[in-house]
Amino acid sequence: MDAPSTPTPRWGLWLLGARGSVATTMTVGWAAMVANLAGPEGMVTQLSAFDGVGLPGLPDLVIGGCDIGEVPLVKRAEQLETAGVVPHGVVDRIAEELATVDARLTAGVTARDVAEHPAAALARLRADLTAFRTAHDLDRVVVVNVASTEPPVDPHDSHRDVDLLLAALDADLAVLSPAPLVAVAALTSGAAFVDFTPSSATVLPAIQQLAERHGLPLAGRDGKTGETLLKTALAPMFADRALRVRSWSGMNLLGGGDGQTLADPTHARSKLESKAAPLQAILGYQPDGPVRIDHVADLGDWKTAWDLITFEGFLGTRMQLQFTWQGCDSALAAPLVLDLARLVALAMGAGQSGPLPALAYFFKDPVGSSQHRLAEQFTDLITWARTTAAATGTTAA
Amino acid sequence: MDAPSTPTPRWGLWLLGARGSVATTMTVGWAAMVANLAGPEGMVTQLSAFDGVGLPGLPDLVIGGCDIGEVPLVKRAEQLETAGVVPHGVVDRIAEELATVDARLTAGVTARDVAEHPAAALARLRADLTAFRTAHDLDRVVVVNVASTEPPVDPHDSHRDVDLLLAALDADLAVLSPAPLVAVAALTSGAAFVDFTPSSATVLPAIQQLAERHGLPLAGRDGKTGETLLKTALAPMFADRALRVRSWSGMNLLGGGDGQTLADPTHARSKLESKAAPLQAILGYQPDGPVRIDHVADLGDWKTAWDLITFEGFLGTRMQLQFTWQGCDSALAAPLVLDLARLVALAMGAGQSGPLPALAYFFKDPVGSSQHRLAEQFTDLITWARTTAAATGTTAA
Amino acid sequence: MDAPSTPTPRWGLWLLGARGSVATTMTVGWAAMVANLAGPEGMVTQLSAFDGVGLPGLPDLVIGGCDIGEVPLVKRAEQLETAGVVPHGVVDRIAEELATVDARLTAGVTARDVAEHPAAALARLRADLTAFRTAHDLDRVVVVNVASTEPPVDPHDSHRDVDLLLAALDADLAVLSPAPLVAVAALTSGAAFVDFTPSSATVLPAIQQLAERHGLPLAGRDGKTGETLLKTALAPMFADRALRVRSWSGMNLLGGGDGQTLADPTHARSKLESKAAPLQAILGYQPDGPVRIDHVADLGDWKTAWDLITFEGFLGTRMQLQFTWQGCDSALAAPLVLDLARLVALAMGAGQSGPLPALAYFFKDPVGSSQHRLAEQFTDLITWARTTAAATGTTAA
Amino acid sequence: MDAPSTPTPRWGLWLLGARGSVATTMTVGWAAMVANLAGPEGMVTQLSAFDGVGLPGLPDLVIGGCDIGEVPLVKRAEQLETAGVVPHGVVDRIAEELATVDARLTAGVTARDVAEHPAAALARLRADLTAFRTAHDLDRVVVVNVASTEPPVDPHDSHRDVDLLLAALDADLAVLSPAPLVAVAALTSGAAFVDFTPSSATVLPAIQQLAERHGLPLAGRDGKTGETLLKTALAPMFADRALRVRSWSGMNLLGGGDGQTLADPTHARSKLESKAAPLQAILGYQPDGPVRIDHVADLGDWKTAWDLITFEGFLGTRMQLQFTWQGCDSALAAPLVLDLARLVALAMGAGQSGPLPALAYFFKDPVGSSQHRLAEQFTDLITWARTTAAATGTTAA
Repeated sequence: MDAPSTPTPRWGLWLLGARGSVATTMTVGWAAMVANLAGPEGMVTQLSAFDGVGLPGLPDLVIGGCDIGEVPLVKRAEQLETAGVVPHGVVDRIAEELATVDARLTAGVTARDVAEHPAAALARLRADLTAFRTAHDLDRVVVVNVASTEPPVDPHDSHRDVDLLLAALDADLAVLSPAPLVAVAALTSGAAFVDFTPSSATVLPAIQQLAERHGLPLAGRDGKTGETLLKTALAPMFADRALRVRSWSGMNLLGGGDGQTLADPTHARSKLESKAAPLQAILGYQPDGPVRIDHVADLGDWKTAWDLITFEGFLGTRMQLQFTWQGCDSALAAPLVLDLARLVALAMGAGQSGPLPALAYFFKDPVGSSQHRLAEQFTDLITWARTTAAATGTTAA
Repeated sequence: MDAPSTPTPRWGLWLLGARGSVATTMTVGWAAMVANLAGPEGMVTQLSAFDGVGLPGLPDLVIGGCDIGEVPLVKRAEQLETAGVVPHGVVDRIAEELATVDARLTAGVTARDVAEHPAAALARLRADLTAFRTAHDLDRVVVVNVASTEPPVDPHDSHRDVDLLLAALDADLAVLSPAPLVAVAALTSGAAFVDFTPSSATVLPAIQQLAERHGLPLAGRDGKTGETLLKTALAPMFADRALRVRSWSGMNLLGGGDGQTLADPTHARSKLESKAAPLQAILGYQPDGPVRIDHVADLGDWKTAWDLITFEGFLGTRMQLQFTWQGCDSALAAPLVLDLARLVALAMGAGQSGPLPALAYFFKDPVGSSQHRLAEQFTDLITWARTTAAATGTTAA
Repeated sequence: MDAPSTPTPRWGLWLLGARGSVATTMTVGWAAMVANLAGPEGMVTQLSAFDGVGLPGLPDLVIGGCDIGEVPLVKRAEQLETAGVVPHGVVDRIAEELATVDARLTAGVTARDVAEHPAAALARLRADLTAFRTAHDLDRVVVVNVASTEPPVDPHDSHRDVDLLLAALDADLAVLSPAPLVAVAALTSGAAFVDFTPSSATVLPAIQQLAERHGLPLAGRDGKTGETLLKTALAPMFADRALRVRSWSGMNLLGGGDGQTLADPTHARSKLESKAAPLQAILGYQPDGPVRIDHVADLGDWKTAWDLITFEGFLGTRMQLQFTWQGCDSALAAPLVLDLARLVALAMGAGQSGPLPALAYFFKDPVGSSQHRLAEQFTDLITWARTTAAATGTTAA
Repeated sequence: MDAPSTPTPRWGLWLLGARGSVATTMTVGWAAMVANLAGPEGMVTQLSAFDGVGLPGLPDLVIGGCDIGEVPLVKRAEQLETAGVVPHGVVDRIAEELATVDARLTAGVTARDVAEHPAAALARLRADLTAFRTAHDLDRVVVVNVASTEPPVDPHDSHRDVDLLLAALDADLAVLSPAPLVAVAALTSGAAFVDFTPSSATVLPAIQQLAERHGLPLAGRDGKTGETLLKTALAPMFADRALRVRSWSGMNLLGGGDGQTLADPTHARSKLESKAAPLQAILGYQPDGPVRIDHVADLGDWKTAWDLITFEGFLGTRMQLQFTWQGCDSALAAPLVLDLARLVALAMGAGQSGPLPALAYFFKDPVGSSQHRLAEQFTDLITWARTTAAATGTTAA
């Protein structure tokens, strides 16, 4: 692990959706790593490429958050153990840490809250965040949205201008869905905001302006963990070999709550939009072919994606690639949330504000960046981390 | 296409295995492109990234070579048309160009030639190459090996030192198999050498020294066109996401002459060696799992590769990826041979000698480079091409 | 081929959709087989199991029909040649036979015809069929629907009773879509009717009564050629090994006109209904999991189906099967149309009337049968063919 | 469960390889079913098709056997629990039953035993079997071989004649490997013998004669649980649709002890032979294409088989099917061992002797039967079970 040259800042991670599968897996994994019950697999910032960058340490992290669900974290962790997401025998040994985090969680913010009493909801969220910071004497707080996919918000003039937006909220107008409202609460309370879920939170100009105004960073959106991860690894191969992709069809089957939400076409819209962008960006054209998401309860947290790619090479010869990806979404997403929290905390220390394009590596639809090629994104990330660390003097000796 | 600022050099491409499937497909495609009967699909150097690099033009290319087979090129092209590698209707329209190339081809060099009369074989090859250069008044000649996979040569002291090697050949000792002997003939006749096939030609120290001594470039080995191409696109994704690859099994089924050669374990050895290197290099460890090559006549030129990758993420969670690649090896390889000839001709113009690490992008087992990550190889290639062009003044206005 | 002991009847096959892909492929294949340009692959009734059954001979067949399209059959055949459905070189050699069939084709029946002037449309179809029979002096005529999938007809009282139906048509009421109207025309003109497409034609009680009244056989519906064929081959394996299927998801990608029609949810309804029945029937329960049909133009006539089956065995252990089927729908369907015509002609010779359950082998949703297990269907077919042949004395010596 | 009309016989199952994965899974599953901790999934004889056949009941079964391994059954069961073959929480609750079975197990028979002291080994096995029968007062004993695959025995004259064989064993000649020696011990002690593993035990004529002489049944060989199960479900589909299979390639990856044994070409020979037979039998020809077995430790008990089938239909059109089977061999095999024991006990009650062709459903290479079509095998099995039950009066009221 890294050995920072400056005193470790006290840092906090506050989760919107803190009892969801991703958040629970993350909290279990964090506690297990701190207790030496789990290795660093899946965490990007534990790679040797980050040695010496002086990222905040995992043992120093304080986790909080809110959720509309009330099932205790330990219980949620046991459910994930039964589902095979979390290995048998771990939850028992970290139950105390889970209970400690659980005790810090506050009530979630519902669609009804933001529709009927947005000003009150915002005030309550700000109070919760301030209480979290104060109670644990935190130098930096990163808020991460890991709640369910939200449909795009209905357009409203206030979305384009930070002053109009703040005025609308003051006037108790229902112009934001939960995730963007949490983003406003975070930024106006001195916390950075990361949208790991597809929502409008990081793409509304008014919220980006708010981040700039408060000198706080933003990152998003929609964690890249499965089919899209593969697309951004594979599409450059076709592009750079001058192989023309004629069709790229993607069929996603998933169970769990996420699968159920995404089987609803309204909710799926944000997700399908963010899934379409990378191919256009990398190939320079949009190949034919559908992208489908279907709910199959039996698959649980294991998402199965089957993609069929037809392409054309020299003399027009037709060829095919197909792949089947069977990944556990929660296990893939959870460590990235920890990575993002550490990296955004680094950016906070360097006084960076607004969207962070260098974090594009983590997202399907990166805010502030048009780079979708996975390898380039990784290079950009490493370069940024080292440069930022050097600039702020956090680089380890 | 590029518009060079200097007069185009007269350049030639001399093929070992000029009547094989790759060479025939390449020659058909070259003629079709020059006649505007085919687009640039599959050719890397036709990408806009190479605009302004001033690569030699396709219409100026003179193609020659040798082969142990005697079936005329037009006939071979018709066979590929029937097999679906070459589209219907093209061969008829470029038959004259094929006949012109065919008339330039000389006798191939057999295992018996190099075993019984190596000195005579070498002399004959040098004479053939000199005649080719003189007849067409060529400024630069690139020799490319696209013959069948050769087993590794039996080790011999002369392989380590250029003077010992030349002395051994003078003494008519059978120390080289056909491809390395052709490399010696090329380099001692002023031609560059590219090994597109797995052979020992570019890895023997004595031959690398020979290239340096004559100020000529070398590139190789084993064109990266299918399963390994995918491995080098996908393995970085696992490495950079800290996902531990537990096993990677690759099953390759292919028909055609190549399939038959590779079903022979002795010949397959070179191929299997070059297929194993990339994962070790990218991941830092060799995952469990076999790599198999089997001959299935019915598949013809369409190689089907099925790979199963099992990996481990956060908290040790097990996941899987499998892919099926159905590519036409000849159609994938042929344009890369043209790319390599152009790029090596560029290097010759810049006076570069010895192995060219910047061409690693094209090879399973790149000579002079330990870079196996596909995206980094592409970046290195573009950077090198631009730098070389700038240095030699071939950059277009 | 079979050697019938009785004089071969003169028989005719009249196709609804005679210029579609299935019909064109069938007509090309029929002419090619008669001219010894193609083997018996794909035709069930050419298997040795049918030796001695005395089915009508292919050379004696007279093909006619109608279509709303006007592209000549030869042209349609050339399109299929380009698409790779029909091998190069065949169409040229049977162009005359195609022209002969083409000359017999009459105008198709449109949705507008049956909505605005159903009585006139029926009268015209009957006249066409009678003219076809008379012109060629045919003993038996089989009408087969190979037109596009039709949405289910809107329910109407007349569908339940043959007399009400005939009265409604007399009164020029628009109670039938094209396929059922053709069925009425066929049955009232002395021809048998086969529904190879999903439509309501063979499932309306009134039409089944009409067949009984006229002593004519019916068969249908929806030819079983791809994913469903596999389902009915595989599902019995799970059932008989007591392996509980937890989910069965099927993703179908197809190009061509059929793909376009089925991308329309209204038209797809009939198809999706017929695709769901077999699993329920074989397993005794409906497993979870979607069935999707998507249009991917690039795939042309090659339908790609990917199915993921999750199942549970001893002690609840979870397992998986996935398959990818890449079949040419037209090539799979075309020979079955010839098979059905021959078998229905056999039934006509035996005086069988109404739905023929023994032909369930050919259909996704077999009229008159609840048997969906493929192997049992085949056994039933062979048994029926032999019994029927014996009863009618058509058995060869 | 069935309610036999006659008093249940006391019956025993004696396992060669009683501590192996299949045997352990079977014993765990048996105990779990008897204790109502597991359902009937995976057991063929629990299907309603066997209602009323009067098979011996599971609660009445006494399990014994031998093994060369000495790890206690409970420990083996815990290993399988960790590997995910047996669900968490079951082993604890049946530990007593496992210990009871464990106490009955005797020393296994090694390759060295049968090579150096065959007569003594045979005598010891007979004594063990007699003791097992006597101790539990058993009416019928079925011996089942679930040990590792054995290479074919070296041919010896004594294999063709029962008297020569018995004489050779009396003379202490090393003419049999362990499994056939156990078969001789079983049959000469009044027990039936089933070869669930590929060995020579049930195919040597001398052993078949021995079974006939003692009036005891034999069944074998090589349980059909994965790729071959699918082949015999799918190949009839191709045959009966007149689709010509051009190639069928099968790649099997498996971990565990079985994988290690089969990675050895000598041991794999028996297995590969039994895997090749079904296609020849069903299709009438042997398609091109390899069958490979490779060991991939990480896969554990989950065998992954990938098959690529290329085939030809109407007008020679080429198509493909590929499937990936991910099954747990132990979970698939274990219930079939219980099924076989029950069915062979039924045959013993009916006085049937020699190979039982009606049990072909369970085997890759069925002794006494050339029927490989899965559906027909199932029909034959049901018919036989009912007929046998009726003949012996075991049919339930």
